[in-house]
Amino acid sequence: MGRGRFITLEGGEGAGKSTQIRLLADALRAGGIDVVATREPGGSPGAEFIRNMLVNGDVGRWLPTSEALLLSAARHDHVMRKIRPALDAGQWVLCDRFADSTMAYQGYGHGLDHGVLTALRDIAVGDTKPDLTLILDIDPAQGLARAASRRGGEDRYERMHVAFHERLREGYQAIARAEPSRCAIIDASAGIDAIQAAIRAAIADRLGVAL
Amino acid sequence: MGRGRFITLEGGEGAGKSTQIRLLADALRAGGIDVVATREPGGSPGAEFIRNMLVNGDVGRWLPTSEALLLSAARHDHVMRKIRPALDAGQWVLCDRFADSTMAYQGYGHGLDHGVLTALRDIAVGDTKPDLTLILDIDPAQGLARAASRRGGEDRYERMHVAFHERLREGYQAIARAEPSRCAIIDASAGIDAIQAAIRAAIADRLGVAL
Repeated sequence: MGRGRFITLEGGEGAGKSTQIRLLADALRAGGIDVVATREPGGSPGAEFIRNMLVNGDVGRWLPTSEALLLSAARHDHVMRKIRPALDAGQWVLCDRFADSTMAYQGYGHGLDHGVLTALRDIAVGDTKPDLTLILDIDPAQGLARAASRRGGEDRYERMHVAFHERLREGYQAIARAEPSRCAIIDASAGIDAIQAAIRAAIADRLGVAL
Repeated sequence: MGRGRFITLEGGEGAGKSTQIRLLADALRAGGIDVVATREPGGSPGAEFIRNMLVNGDVGRWLPTSEALLLSAARHDHVMRKIRPALDAGQWVLCDRFADSTMAYQGYGHGLDHGVLTALRDIAVGDTKPDLTLILDIDPAQGLARAASRRGGEDRYERMHVAFHERLREGYQAIARAEPSRCAIIDASAGIDAIQAAIRAAIADRLGVAL
């Protein structure tokens, strides 16, 4: 049994990542693949504990550098205790946000030094890097309107200014340009089925697995 | 009004750091110096929150790398929100543990890569480095016996094996050898008054302030 594949979904608020992960997990399981669906920040008990510190409370509770360090601590726990063991056991791991989110939000969004964030990523993940990253791209105004229609109190990130979300989108596009073989940009302004079809096409194209 | 001085106290368990900081703060205040006494992990509301995650619970709750990242997140909050503003206002800051503790515990104690820990230190503290670091040196068996005689539930670090505390002591000695102009080793096997006298002598010698 070989190592499983590691697929991350990235994008701004309201891009539909969690819906698309559910559909993709269903399709992979129907194809006989053992799937672990997870998310960041969080995904393991220690990381979920850190998540609670991050998603609740005032926007200014954590300085951007502290936030990047906390996210990296959570990511290391998640990688070592859940993602890497699953991949080693031959499972496929689908993760709703991963290290690119920290570069997009803290780097492009908050202006933290990109070299610092790259160093933190390497400390947190080691050699556990995604085989494929699907970047769900959507106009921030449309994404934020979608997100606002959802329920739930974990809205600290969403309350930040729209200009922040514009920088986020540009950041994801820059990440995709820098690593085109790992990243695929998916048009997330379309309907749910069209987005899922584009995701499956990317998996067939990049990983050679037809669903 | 010039920038205040930043003095850190380091050492293993039971070396008497908190007692010595209280005595030193009293002496400085009697000399007309405005003093802020603080501690790590913790020292600011966000950092104290992270401290609670670290000092309670099972020894294996956090992987060493996650622990180093959490400590660095707390340190950045503490530096930016308490230490640096105090120094800029001309106050002297006395800190019970600082970045050297992470190098000693996670680096020498747990074997984490020293380059990683140096990178995390630089991210967390920027240019806010101690003017003087007093390393209270004591035989681990003597220090652990002192610590065991105290009350309190925050004993996760103290329950680690004695061999760990031996590596810790060697780590502090290596840190002092690498930065002799910043670090002073104080014999902490002596009585309280003798230790305090040695600390005041180091301050007179290194910072030119007689107490």
